[in-house]
Parts: sequence; C-alpha cells; structure tokens
Amino acid sequence: MAARDQSRIIPEDYQDLLDTTALVHVATLGPQGEPQSNPVWFDWDGEHVKFSQTKTRQKYRNVMREPKIAMSVVDPENPYRYLEIRGTVEGIEEDPDNAFINAMARKYLGMDEYPYHQPGDERVIVYVRPQHTTHMG
Amino acid sequence: MAARDQSRIIPEDYQDLLDTTALVHVATLGPQGEPQSNPVWFDWDGEHVKFSQTKTRQKYRNVMREPKIAMSVVDPENPYRYLEIRGTVEGIEEDPDNAFINAMARKYLGMDEYPYHQPGDERVIVYVRPQHTTHMG
Repeated sequence: MAARDQSRIIPEDYQDLLDTTALVHVATLGPQGEPQSNPVWFDWDGEHVKFSQTKTRQKYRNVMREPKIAMSVVDPENPYRYLEIRGTVEGIEEDPDNAFINAMARKYLGMDEYPYHQPGDERVIVYVRPQHTTHMG
Repeated sequence: MAARDQSRIIPEDYQDLLDTTALVHVATLGPQGEPQSNPVWFDWDGEHVKFSQTKTRQKYRNVMREPKIAMSVVDPENPYRYLEIRGTVEGIEEDPDNAFINAMARKYLGMDEYPYHQPGDERVIVYVRPQHTTHMG
C-alpha cells in the first residue's frame, strides 16, 4: 500500500466527519455493472476507510470483482453538510477473531463484542483508499 | 410509464421509510462507469422516488448517460434499519418554476421557497422506478 499524503485528498475541513459515528453509504457495482448502495459502520485509520463485511454479502462479492467504490457520509450535526469519498478497494483482510467488527461495536454501540454475530459468519475488513472527494455545506 | 403495483416491490413494512424526512443516498455511475454517491432530499409519489437536480451537476449527467441507480435510506429513528431501492431513471422533467424543489423545501425545511436557489440554476425532477429492494433491521 503506497505511502501517500491522504490529507491532500480528504479536505481538511471535512476530516472531522471521519471521526463521527455517522454511517457511510457505500456504492458498489453489482454483477451487471449496476450501482448498489447500503449503509455501513466505518473506521478511518488516516489512510483508509475500513468497513466490515461477511463473505456471503453481495457487497463483498462486488468489491472482489470490481474494486471501484464510492461512499457518502452526512454530518450528524448538520444534514446539509456531507463528504463523498471515491476510491478503490486496496485490500481485503480476514477478521477471523472478529477483532475489527468488535472494535466497530465499541465505536457504534459502546459494547465490547459485536452482538449480531451469527455462527458461521466469516468476516473480512475492506480497506478503501480515497482518491477523490466531493462535498457540500 | 407502465402501471404496476409498486407495493410488490417496496416491502410493506419498509414503506414508512418513504414518508420520512431522511435523506436518500443516491448511487449513480460516473463517466468511467465508476460508482458515485451522494445524499439528496426525496419524494415518493407511490410509484416513483423523485429528487431534484440542477442540470450542471455530475449526477444529472450520470443518469442521462446511464439510468441505472440505487438509493439507500436509513430509518431516522433506528440506525439499524434501512431500505435499499434499486431501479431505473424512467423520466426527467423540467422544473422551470421550481415547484418541485419548493415542495422539497416545504417537506425538509418547512419553508415555502427553496432558499438556496442560485440565479441561472436550471432544475429538473428525476423519476426513479423501483425494481428491486434490499433491507435490514
């Protein structure tokens, strides 16, 4: 994963949105190249937007096939302020001990363990490298 | 626009989300077929999801080129409940007197006139016919 100054890509005055517990709405491409959209919990490590996914979900299959992705997040304090991040899925990592989804449960639910885990769920961590943004507000 | 029972497409127990003042996040395809995402105000007329757009915006050009679209909306009362609507842009109508964007300002802002109109803005109404949904919660 190439080192690069992500602060040049995420505008400084929108970086606060990456520290909120807002949902990001993730747009991916389906099997026929059609757009699909759904909201997810996310994390920002200063370089990648990260989200959790089970291997059985359509979105996982979508980004394995086509890594182009877009995400939009609205300021929870101001519905007229949002950031769109377009980028590429740069990596997908296994999350065999659920460390990442549990970290997301701590962030979003204040719980140490993700409470919706189903037996047999195999989770991965999707790493998105931002390449372009749009914003409003 | 073919008559069709949309209630078969929007699950009955998610139709309430179409009456909220939540934002829908709209996923479209950009010039290189890449996904793009951003939040918009919307209306539901029982058959189409409708949203306003200025002709200069990328999203307008996107749906003129490729009418496939997806939208996700989260329940404002329950962040773990959402509806995704996939469909097709079936029509684009002029909104020369801003009747539609003003109706959206009434819905979302409680104001009779859209306050962010810029001189020269040419607005259209985008009509999306739902074809498939996914949901959670």
